[in-house]
Amino acid sequence: MKAAILGYGTVGSGVGEIIGSLCAKGIEVAHILERTENLHKHPLMCDDINVILNDEEVDVVVETMGGIEPAHTFIMAALNAKKHVVSANKAVIARYMEEFHACADANGVRFLYEASCGGGIPWLHNLYNALRIDEIDEIHGIFNGTTNYILDHMEKEQAQFDVILAKAQQLGYAESDPSADIDGIDIQNKLRISATIAFQGNVPLTFPVFGIRNINKTDIDYAASLHKKIKLPAIAKRVDDRYYAAVEPTLYEETQTEASISENFNLTCLHGATIGDLKFYGQGAGKLPTANAVVQDILDLHENIDTQPKNQNKALRVDTSLVCGTYIVRTDAPEALINELFTDFYVKKEVFKDNTYYWMEHISSYMMHQKVKELCNTDGNVFFAQIAEVNA
Amino acid sequence: MKAAILGYGTVGSGVGEIIGSLCAKGIEVAHILERTENLHKHPLMCDDINVILNDEEVDVVVETMGGIEPAHTFIMAALNAKKHVVSANKAVIARYMEEFHACADANGVRFLYEASCGGGIPWLHNLYNALRIDEIDEIHGIFNGTTNYILDHMEKEQAQFDVILAKAQQLGYAESDPSADIDGIDIQNKLRISATIAFQGNVPLTFPVFGIRNINKTDIDYAASLHKKIKLPAIAKRVDDRYYAAVEPTLYEETQTEASISENFNLTCLHGATIGDLKFYGQGAGKLPTANAVVQDILDLHENIDTQPKNQNKALRVDTSLVCGTYIVRTDAPEALINELFTDFYVKKEVFKDNTYYWMEHISSYMMHQKVKELCNTDGNVFFAQIAEVNA
Repeated sequence: MKAAILGYGTVGSGVGEIIGSLCAKGIEVAHILERTENLHKHPLMCDDINVILNDEEVDVVVETMGGIEPAHTFIMAALNAKKHVVSANKAVIARYMEEFHACADANGVRFLYEASCGGGIPWLHNLYNALRIDEIDEIHGIFNGTTNYILDHMEKEQAQFDVILAKAQQLGYAESDPSADIDGIDIQNKLRISATIAFQGNVPLTFPVFGIRNINKTDIDYAASLHKKIKLPAIAKRVDDRYYAAVEPTLYEETQTEASISENFNLTCLHGATIGDLKFYGQGAGKLPTANAVVQDILDLHENIDTQPKNQNKALRVDTSLVCGTYIVRTDAPEALINELFTDFYVKKEVFKDNTYYWMEHISSYMMHQKVKELCNTDGNVFFAQIAEVNA
Repeated sequence: MKAAILGYGTVGSGVGEIIGSLCAKGIEVAHILERTENLHKHPLMCDDINVILNDEEVDVVVETMGGIEPAHTFIMAALNAKKHVVSANKAVIARYMEEFHACADANGVRFLYEASCGGGIPWLHNLYNALRIDEIDEIHGIFNGTTNYILDHMEKEQAQFDVILAKAQQLGYAESDPSADIDGIDIQNKLRISATIAFQGNVPLTFPVFGIRNINKTDIDYAASLHKKIKLPAIAKRVDDRYYAAVEPTLYEETQTEASISENFNLTCLHGATIGDLKFYGQGAGKLPTANAVVQDILDLHENIDTQPKNQNKALRVDTSLVCGTYIVRTDAPEALINELFTDFYVKKEVFKDNTYYWMEHISSYMMHQKVKELCNTDGNVFFAQIAEVNA
């Protein structure tokens, strides 16, 4: 089986390395698409996608460029040229996954993207297998290593957000423009992809997202005083044809598995009727773990293993009552405004190291996001988080 | 595809239920083998294995009887009758897996046993997939829900071992003869199976095992005073053709993922060169989770998906230096005996609530098991545990 790799950055070159070490298994790299100025770096490099599209020996195109364009155009062109496509690019998949799948089906080829969600964790493969038997009614988890690293190290190093963000950037865990990570956009993309598969219907990118840009060290300390840790999970629940999805900071009990996820690791979780809870832990990013997930997809193509369910395109509608619970809001807005915004839900306030935390009960996640958006007009530094329920 | 189920107890009847709910997928139950006195309970029941072996329409025999005989004889007979076999029976697989695989190969059928290790956790499937790319150099984890429940509830309920064991028996988590669980035999079987797959060579049932029969509440409290929790994990490491495997009580930091595993859940972990650490969490036992794992194997047969690697039968030898570290021993044997037995390793003692804990450093797991066996002659209630290393 011959592969062409589009983009030979961190993940793409990792794919090349792993395929190189597997040569006995009958997979080889035929072409690498790169920018003109890089062509001297590798004998297989070219800068013309048509060389790849027109090479009939290429069976699979591996898209590891990232970004929306030209990734979208190249993926469509490869599928239309009747080549399987394996992609690690959550941004373009989150935007166009239905279009890619329809195009793959029309051309009798496959579109696989294990590496796009959870990096090296075999998350989508396990989701596919779980769906062979169970309907899945919940997925949640820590889908972003950058934010998990920042939250973990703000506590470990007793440091402010900006200090740890700068450190994460030095280590290569965060981009120079960190907004996709810290504002939850990367997680939103992964939740959109995962929930669309898990619920077998389209979960569009329109659900609420709140990141960790506004978190401060006192928030971390306040959580610790409650024996809790702050994480930035994604959550999606489904009951029949109704669903709710969100990305929001959440306080877990120190003894919960979610709280134990340190450094830049991820944890992805599903719940099915017969299997109960399954959780998967691993490297959510990084050269070789992500490349490993890409190569797993290529091996499935090579070995003709197909566990990916056809999306049943169930008609799903949002039900904002499905995620509801206890939340805290940290703000220096006047208490009168809190009283006004959160009537019926506001139950107490606590002052901790000069920060004021307002506790809300029996409020929906959706309403919290709405109200906090209003609060932002008064207090641009507002922070809020769900208090995770603790099961027995 | 037609299946025959041998033994319609908890797991077997769960398999029947799940297959019943999947009838659209083309799998049906043709026969159920049960004791003569049960035949009135289900129209498909028979008490003669030959009815199943001679039915040419039966494609797969599902062995959910447990125990060594007649399970061993029936599995061999089914394979020799050119029927695929799916088993959940770790005891018989641990003893005969090489024989079963050889017989399956000779007859052109397959022998699958996802449910035997980790219950509902898709552990073996993920081990198989990891092996497509990586050599695996370590597996470890919590492979037994009964002992995890007992250790967790001794802490939660501040109760002695016997009290919680009795409760676990009432709840159906522990057998009336609990020794297979509490003495680590069940875990030993699962580690033997998992390590043989992971290391691609035979890891026989000869490695050291120490269970939790001797643990007392003070041991739990002592661990808590160190901010640690006691678990009973399995561990196996490999370097080139050398390996070491053991089952031994281990103290994990409260913040480690292993420590967060509560109730009767399991956590199974692997480490590979490119993928790094992967950990899998779920129900290690129970009717529907275990049955789900059995049906996953049947679906693989039905969909002709084969990810199980042929065991490469690598020649492996034991290297007792591979697992080495810090251990505690709780005993009321005279300190002079400790000094004599553990010269060079004994570094300090601590008295906690009238129990005496001796700390050993830089000692191999193998030597610990040997020395504690000697100590047992003086103190039949001795308890020991490894102190898990904490990674960054």
